[in-house]
Amino acid sequence: MANNKKLILDCDPGHDDAISIILAASKLSNLNIEAITTVAGNVEVEKNTVNALRVCDIVGLNDIPVAQGASTPLFRKPEIAEEIHGETGLDGPEMPDNPNKKPVDQHAVDLIINRIMASNDDITLVPTGPLTNIGLAMIKEPKIILKIKEIVLMGGGTFGNWTPAAEFNIYVDAEAAKVVFESGAPITMFGLDVTHQAIATRETVERLSEIDNHVSNFVVDLLKFFIKTNEDVFDMDGGPIHDACTALYLMDPEIFGVKHVRVDIETKGEFTYGMTCVDTLGVTNREPNVHFAHQLNHKKFWGLFEDALSSYSD
Amino acid sequence: MANNKKLILDCDPGHDDAISIILAASKLSNLNIEAITTVAGNVEVEKNTVNALRVCDIVGLNDIPVAQGASTPLFRKPEIAEEIHGETGLDGPEMPDNPNKKPVDQHAVDLIINRIMASNDDITLVPTGPLTNIGLAMIKEPKIILKIKEIVLMGGGTFGNWTPAAEFNIYVDAEAAKVVFESGAPITMFGLDVTHQAIATRETVERLSEIDNHVSNFVVDLLKFFIKTNEDVFDMDGGPIHDACTALYLMDPEIFGVKHVRVDIETKGEFTYGMTCVDTLGVTNREPNVHFAHQLNHKKFWGLFEDALSSYSD
Amino acid sequence: MANNKKLILDCDPGHDDAISIILAASKLSNLNIEAITTVAGNVEVEKNTVNALRVCDIVGLNDIPVAQGASTPLFRKPEIAEEIHGETGLDGPEMPDNPNKKPVDQHAVDLIINRIMASNDDITLVPTGPLTNIGLAMIKEPKIILKIKEIVLMGGGTFGNWTPAAEFNIYVDAEAAKVVFESGAPITMFGLDVTHQAIATRETVERLSEIDNHVSNFVVDLLKFFIKTNEDVFDMDGGPIHDACTALYLMDPEIFGVKHVRVDIETKGEFTYGMTCVDTLGVTNREPNVHFAHQLNHKKFWGLFEDALSSYSD
Amino acid sequence: MANNKKLILDCDPGHDDAISIILAASKLSNLNIEAITTVAGNVEVEKNTVNALRVCDIVGLNDIPVAQGASTPLFRKPEIAEEIHGETGLDGPEMPDNPNKKPVDQHAVDLIINRIMASNDDITLVPTGPLTNIGLAMIKEPKIILKIKEIVLMGGGTFGNWTPAAEFNIYVDAEAAKVVFESGAPITMFGLDVTHQAIATRETVERLSEIDNHVSNFVVDLLKFFIKTNEDVFDMDGGPIHDACTALYLMDPEIFGVKHVRVDIETKGEFTYGMTCVDTLGVTNREPNVHFAHQLNHKKFWGLFEDALSSYSD
Repeated sequence: MANNKKLILDCDPGHDDAISIILAASKLSNLNIEAITTVAGNVEVEKNTVNALRVCDIVGLNDIPVAQGASTPLFRKPEIAEEIHGETGLDGPEMPDNPNKKPVDQHAVDLIINRIMASNDDITLVPTGPLTNIGLAMIKEPKIILKIKEIVLMGGGTFGNWTPAAEFNIYVDAEAAKVVFESGAPITMFGLDVTHQAIATRETVERLSEIDNHVSNFVVDLLKFFIKTNEDVFDMDGGPIHDACTALYLMDPEIFGVKHVRVDIETKGEFTYGMTCVDTLGVTNREPNVHFAHQLNHKKFWGLFEDALSSYSD
Repeated sequence: MANNKKLILDCDPGHDDAISIILAASKLSNLNIEAITTVAGNVEVEKNTVNALRVCDIVGLNDIPVAQGASTPLFRKPEIAEEIHGETGLDGPEMPDNPNKKPVDQHAVDLIINRIMASNDDITLVPTGPLTNIGLAMIKEPKIILKIKEIVLMGGGTFGNWTPAAEFNIYVDAEAAKVVFESGAPITMFGLDVTHQAIATRETVERLSEIDNHVSNFVVDLLKFFIKTNEDVFDMDGGPIHDACTALYLMDPEIFGVKHVRVDIETKGEFTYGMTCVDTLGVTNREPNVHFAHQLNHKKFWGLFEDALSSYSD
Repeated sequence: MANNKKLILDCDPGHDDAISIILAASKLSNLNIEAITTVAGNVEVEKNTVNALRVCDIVGLNDIPVAQGASTPLFRKPEIAEEIHGETGLDGPEMPDNPNKKPVDQHAVDLIINRIMASNDDITLVPTGPLTNIGLAMIKEPKIILKIKEIVLMGGGTFGNWTPAAEFNIYVDAEAAKVVFESGAPITMFGLDVTHQAIATRETVERLSEIDNHVSNFVVDLLKFFIKTNEDVFDMDGGPIHDACTALYLMDPEIFGVKHVRVDIETKGEFTYGMTCVDTLGVTNREPNVHFAHQLNHKKFWGLFEDALSSYSD
Repeated sequence: MANNKKLILDCDPGHDDAISIILAASKLSNLNIEAITTVAGNVEVEKNTVNALRVCDIVGLNDIPVAQGASTPLFRKPEIAEEIHGETGLDGPEMPDNPNKKPVDQHAVDLIINRIMASNDDITLVPTGPLTNIGLAMIKEPKIILKIKEIVLMGGGTFGNWTPAAEFNIYVDAEAAKVVFESGAPITMFGLDVTHQAIATRETVERLSEIDNHVSNFVVDLLKFFIKTNEDVFDMDGGPIHDACTALYLMDPEIFGVKHVRVDIETKGEFTYGMTCVDTLGVTNREPNVHFAHQLNHKKFWGLFEDALSSYSD
């Protein structure tokens, strides 16, 4: 699996964000994580930063910078999802209060701009939270847009989970999403259509328990908590590990069925703020701007998931 | 099937509108059609009126009034769907240019208001086109709202066919739809979620051909045309006979699975104008206002459909 | 002053509406009032109808129909201005509880449509309340638009009185206003720019007291109340008799300076709902649609005002 | 005139911006210009930066940093006003192609954030162009909001010059303006209501010509061009030197009549985008957030203007 893609993970960990980092950081992945940046989302940005650092400690990401980003959406009050991720944003596993790793003294937006401007146009952005940092970077330095290799993001869908029309990540900062989706940068989008095919259940947890290294055990603890809150809040049978789709796609694109379509972001609606309007029927006659993931091969997905966790040694 | 529900059919026939009238007017239905009103929609209101009269001629609805209604949406320019229904709005069967039956000299809105105000609160409105007439009647005489027994309508859905977010009937006049959906009158809604389960295919046509009376043969001609245009325009395998769901529901509610939910109409969105935001997850905490049909029993549906057509004699 | 214009006065009396009727009905005016229609506005439509009938009793308008119209705006909840006009909508003068004159049994909208459709294109509409009836008539029967001679209305302005951006009449039903202003019918608009030049003060009241007939005395009582509430609510020095401008314009257009400009109605703004955007600078490049009154000759205005009242005998 | 206020001038020079810098930089002013930042507005940001540097050369502002800022509004395409300011943004006077002074290698937004965060809460921001930089700084580092001493800005008004409702600076980036006006930072606003009282005419030019130092002569050349374009485009009798009001206010607040009122920024309107809704009547019951300048003492204004120019020696 020769790969060596260079990634900046922009996230709000978050159980599924954490799992996504863990997969991307595994030996198996062959992905190069250049930096992790954090954003307000599931919980406050400060908590998300601590959680990102904790995950780095666990998987041994000692050498890469973690930079804290935007504390609020571009124009709106923050929205948080404590009922899904718990008060810390990463409830479930036991973790030390203070991570060993420290964040760098640079705003996430500036880290993103500087890394991309200094790159050979080979950096892939992987946002798994609200798109505030990415949108803000594009506003502050529009020149990055042409130099981004790809944006592989979790967000949106043809239906919603936070409102009838909108998914959480896009809903939190639809203006930022609009900036990103209209930027012209290449986007591959993992929305609810596909992430709701990536459900971790109690059987998943049992199977993963057998891997039994310190990382897989951490993931098992995350999933136990996450499955329970998804069952409680959304009345689902298991928990969709949304963000993990991005990491697995970067490791093996063949897992997913993807379609090139137009996606527009609604920012003006009375009931539809934050909706990703996905033109699967091709009725808008607007230029396709998104590679929209809509299908998932379960066997490949969970196979790679388990292999990645197993590639951690104790 | 004791029934005797009193109906006003408000429509823009339209192939599936025509079929809906035919089913409701069949001996089997035991439904009382009090009047038919027409509205601009699939084609211009004048054409829709002629088509309604033609269908009355065919099924022998000689004694009920047909009243022409609004020629344009409340606030927008008309939108027409000629690519689906042909230039006449009812292309396919051979029909005389001029129907025998004549429309009454009363605006549809006044017919609706007068009939409801004079009723014992026992009239069901059955809109299968844009909601302009119903909305306009509610604006002109708000007192009808409390006297309407039920509104059984075709429109909307959790996905769109005219835009990525909106279905044709609601899109054409979302402001009228908003008036109706927020009125407080009891609404049962047949949107694309369920009407896309009511697909007439070439096999359907073959089966119906065997009934072989003058009405069933008319329906067969309608379906041949309609299936073809739906295949051409929407790349579907057959044609969804949307409006027929309303008539069959009125004849036998057990055909459908229905859920009581909140539905809000988007009128302000940049990309979502005319969307029916259906809160199936119950995340809005807004009062349910719609009985939302989401399931269809195929066997019962097509069984009743064929029985109704067979109940016409030649 | 040969004139003989045929008018339908569409109003929500209202002190200044009442004065406008009185001026138009005076012997001096040579105007033909064909009908009076009422609309919800300053107070509920039922009260406005009673007030219109009372004013007819006072000025002897025994032979013209008074028809009640819309009880609510097209899309919004009603807004009322009791703090300006008192609980009855016409507080101040002593009046019998029940007027002698009775309203006709026809909706205002139908009266307007029927009269205009039957006319020789010579009817002028004079709306001095919210534009709900006029908008609704245009929606129900678009053919009236080309047959309206002129719409002479009170509403709007380059500044607001009900919000920083909007005047009361337009604010109450901006959607109706949008229908009217975009209809293509010829419009002459008396907004706050000019009506705030038509201020009745305590000196005005003293001068009018000297006329001393039963109508002028009624007007004096109206003005006393109206001046006081305007002073209290708007901190003005006197009361602007907004609606009277329309009647005086119809009697003598030379009183006013008028400019042909584009006026657009804002219905989507967060803070500007109901604003009339008057393009006095000519920066929009949009087709002029309104004759915008901006100047008033005080001498002529008050001269004609007094002459009209004096033309009533006791 | 003890003063010593510390200022960051955020501008898009622009004739009146240039004059504002010149006044603020004069010996007489006793103002401390800490930095000049530039923004896209009247012309492209690169041209505005060159013009700011040129003005620094002329008035001897050798030691302060000039930092270039946002090249486009937060969310919209740039709007430029070349018809007012000419192709260079500062047409009129003869100037060397290349200024001696060079800009610093720091984004204006970061300069603003760093200076304010390092300050004793004593920095006044003086934006005389679109509010993009200020809004972006507040979004990137919300902590600056409580540390800004005051924002003294040119923009908005109760009427418009770029549309019937909106003034140019606010119209160009109303979303940024909304961020700033809703931030809670103390704002003093010089809108068209007062800047249209600050008209430079041909008589002004003659009077200023008599001062005859190299700076006053530069101003004379600017005004000649600016008066002409304002006469041509807006059909005005002279040119309103909008931005100069901010500098003169900082030198002597007594020149202006100011009222504490609520001002809201319209970002959603169809015809009112970028309007500053100034609640001079106090009808909104919203908390006052702006000191709104509405009056100007001509004698003091022009007296201080001439004295400031005269304080430059050759």
